[in-house]
Amino acid sequence: MSFLHHHPFSAASRYARLVLSEYDEAVEFVEEKPWVRNAALLALNPAGILPIFIDDNETVVAGGSVITEYLVETKGARMGEVRLMPEHAADRAEVRRLVEWFAGKLHGEVTNYLVTEKIYKRQMKQGEGHTSPDPAAIRAARANVRYHIQYIGYLAARRNWLAGRELTLADFAAAAEISVIDYLGEVPWDADEAAKAWYARVKSRPSFRSLLNDVVRGVPPAPHYVDLDF
Amino acid sequence: MSFLHHHPFSAASRYARLVLSEYDEAVEFVEEKPWVRNAALLALNPAGILPIFIDDNETVVAGGSVITEYLVETKGARMGEVRLMPEHAADRAEVRRLVEWFAGKLHGEVTNYLVTEKIYKRQMKQGEGHTSPDPAAIRAARANVRYHIQYIGYLAARRNWLAGRELTLADFAAAAEISVIDYLGEVPWDADEAAKAWYARVKSRPSFRSLLNDVVRGVPPAPHYVDLDF
Repeated sequence: MSFLHHHPFSAASRYARLVLSEYDEAVEFVEEKPWVRNAALLALNPAGILPIFIDDNETVVAGGSVITEYLVETKGARMGEVRLMPEHAADRAEVRRLVEWFAGKLHGEVTNYLVTEKIYKRQMKQGEGHTSPDPAAIRAARANVRYHIQYIGYLAARRNWLAGRELTLADFAAAAEISVIDYLGEVPWDADEAAKAWYARVKSRPSFRSLLNDVVRGVPPAPHYVDLDF
Repeated sequence: MSFLHHHPFSAASRYARLVLSEYDEAVEFVEEKPWVRNAALLALNPAGILPIFIDDNETVVAGGSVITEYLVETKGARMGEVRLMPEHAADRAEVRRLVEWFAGKLHGEVTNYLVTEKIYKRQMKQGEGHTSPDPAAIRAARANVRYHIQYIGYLAARRNWLAGRELTLADFAAAAEISVIDYLGEVPWDADEAAKAWYARVKSRPSFRSLLNDVVRGVPPAPHYVDLDF
């Protein structure tokens, strides 16, 4: 049996979950609190990041991008057309560039602010670092999200999927971030039709279903969150 | 002919330079200012990041980690033992975890502060965003650098190289960051003997020579910067 230590609203965790599901990997999920230092998890990975994947051969792999590269290398061969990484090095570089952009820049400029202020802070108990949401962080996220949606629309309008003709890791890295932002009702869908059409296509995949069932107590999802035709 | 658009004190650029040199790739270097928006470069990569590698087949690859993965995939096969990526997926995941740690976390917590405040701001002209160095940023870098050096020492004391038995991309990602910090005299070498011994080994490689010749006008290197036996 393999395991994924994750948090349901950590975008990097969602990225790993999507790829695991696309690959039909049976995984036991262990929920963690990203804001609590957990000695057992730190022993597995000193960066203290989520998600952490423990393969059934006991290999420990930490971090959304590292896990997904590992999955492609170890399980991808049997996946044929939905391997999620193209064959040619230049195309793979484009996938990695976009994964870094979404998991790094979009995450740092938008998702991380919103999830910290609107979800993690609400779930923190006394003594776990609980403070009130910071309106400046939420404002920054709202100012930044628009150009990211437009960039997704720019790519989606010119290509079949974000990195090119094929569905790749880049689509899931982006969709994982967007899904968290969308739960919170913070995606300006009116900003870009092509981005919206792309997201509707990713969201309709069976791998997305479990994400759409995640709920945070006290923070209901935006009304259209589970709607495949939003 | 292939090209690398870079800045001599961008750590990600240095990371790509080291790997290109280890691979004996003939490259033409084009110096850029990371703080100036350059329309031609933005057309090549909308993230506007350095370095950018243009392969002799005109493939454009942006970003230190993406470039080095591309080099391993396209030129690594002929490198034999100094391929810089191990054969097994679990070992490759460890390399990628460390590259992300050094190019992401060490960079964000230390190198980026120091290079921005002490080098880029000095090189900026009026109208390019020039302001005085921010002492708070420099203090943050100095507070953070120590545990990074200790982590490098921890790895180096337990393994032959940072990611394991073999020299890998992880050593060059780390050394590229350290080399910039060291130029500025901000590495607390007394904090960890094993880290120092590891850096002396990387620094002695021929691929390091060109880095040791880089100089910023007005910011002389720390006295031991070029010393292989510091």
